[in-house]
Amino acid sequence: MESKRIAAEKAVELVKDGMKIGLGTGSTAYWAIQAIGRLVKEQGLGIQAVATSVQSEQLAKEWGIPMMPFAEVDMLDLTIDGADEVDAELNLIKGGGGALLREKIVAAASKQLIIIVDESKDVQQLGKFPLPVEIVPFAYELTVKKLQQLGCELKLRHNGEELFVTDNGNYIADCEFGDIKDPAALHDDLNRIPGVVDNGLFIDMASLVIIGSADGEIRSKTRQ
Amino acid sequence: MESKRIAAEKAVELVKDGMKIGLGTGSTAYWAIQAIGRLVKEQGLGIQAVATSVQSEQLAKEWGIPMMPFAEVDMLDLTIDGADEVDAELNLIKGGGGALLREKIVAAASKQLIIIVDESKDVQQLGKFPLPVEIVPFAYELTVKKLQQLGCELKLRHNGEELFVTDNGNYIADCEFGDIKDPAALHDDLNRIPGVVDNGLFIDMASLVIIGSADGEIRSKTRQ
Repeated sequence: MESKRIAAEKAVELVKDGMKIGLGTGSTAYWAIQAIGRLVKEQGLGIQAVATSVQSEQLAKEWGIPMMPFAEVDMLDLTIDGADEVDAELNLIKGGGGALLREKIVAAASKQLIIIVDESKDVQQLGKFPLPVEIVPFAYELTVKKLQQLGCELKLRHNGEELFVTDNGNYIADCEFGDIKDPAALHDDLNRIPGVVDNGLFIDMASLVIIGSADGEIRSKTRQ
Repeated sequence: MESKRIAAEKAVELVKDGMKIGLGTGSTAYWAIQAIGRLVKEQGLGIQAVATSVQSEQLAKEWGIPMMPFAEVDMLDLTIDGADEVDAELNLIKGGGGALLREKIVAAASKQLIIIVDESKDVQQLGKFPLPVEIVPFAYELTVKKLQQLGCELKLRHNGEELFVTDNGNYIADCEFGDIKDPAALHDDLNRIPGVVDNGLFIDMASLVIIGSADGEIRSKTRQ
């Protein structure tokens, strides 16, 4: 995954001494964690970090990145994470890895959210990637019906024979809406359904998207 | 609590043979469950029910009310529940008992939501009762800060020395906003915060409110 690695390393150039950093989850974010870890180990970069998953936290600790408790976070300087789709307005679909809620909580507490993707994730309109929606287990059959009434093809995510369970003890419904014409409206419609904890649409959150290509080219997009 | 009992018994007159019923939680709802239980036991009323809490389900079973799994619920005919405040538009604050999410999921699957209260809960404008907001434990310190930025005095609900934990494994933040001028807008602002699972505002959900007074008088309000 050369394209992900080069984009991640480009993003890490924005990490400066003294910053408080949010660490994303998933294959692209792991390249970033490793690049940050090298700066900490080899150049003595002084940062503090929070992680969006148990895996990211473990990887960060292996690299000697100092972690801070959330109680001490007022505002993070920047968070680096991946995405499943990015559109022209820098709206995102995230949650393919199942960590959307923790990623969104950390992103919402960050001055800047830097997204790193390979070029396959860079789309004109969101919706080809099924939108992950985190729902509570209680009476999830009712929540599923409400989601279907919004007009999607829905699959409950599984882990083998069992329903997949998030770090927060919830289920994930992967919802195919087709082209999502108004992501902000869909975001609110979804979160208005009782039983929906949150959904994978990240609206007006990303400040910079760095896109790596297999040929080594790097492009970036910023929000107006 | 004579006023609650008479309001509950009035509400139960709406329960008809063959109906699918949602059972609320809390002192007022328990009067309703007992009244329904007597109809089942003594008059052979044939209904099926779902409950919004473990306590309500136990009470219903003790009275011999037949329970149905959520997977078999398409739409409930009516749900009877209490509330902490009811305004002139039949918007509600619920969640004083900590079951707001389950109550909202069941209410949203009901053709009619019948609310029973005593007259102390009947208010001109919502907001004297602190609004319960259910939040995920992960990084709850960040979610608390976002809630405070909306302009409330906030207390995390405790159970003795420990934080109170809902049936869904989450925390409750009791948020004093003062007079809530636009409940629908506040509802969406709250649910847009990552980490908020849901909040105790029930907007456009109640179809009928039955208000019992200590002197035995019963009033009711319907939504236009």
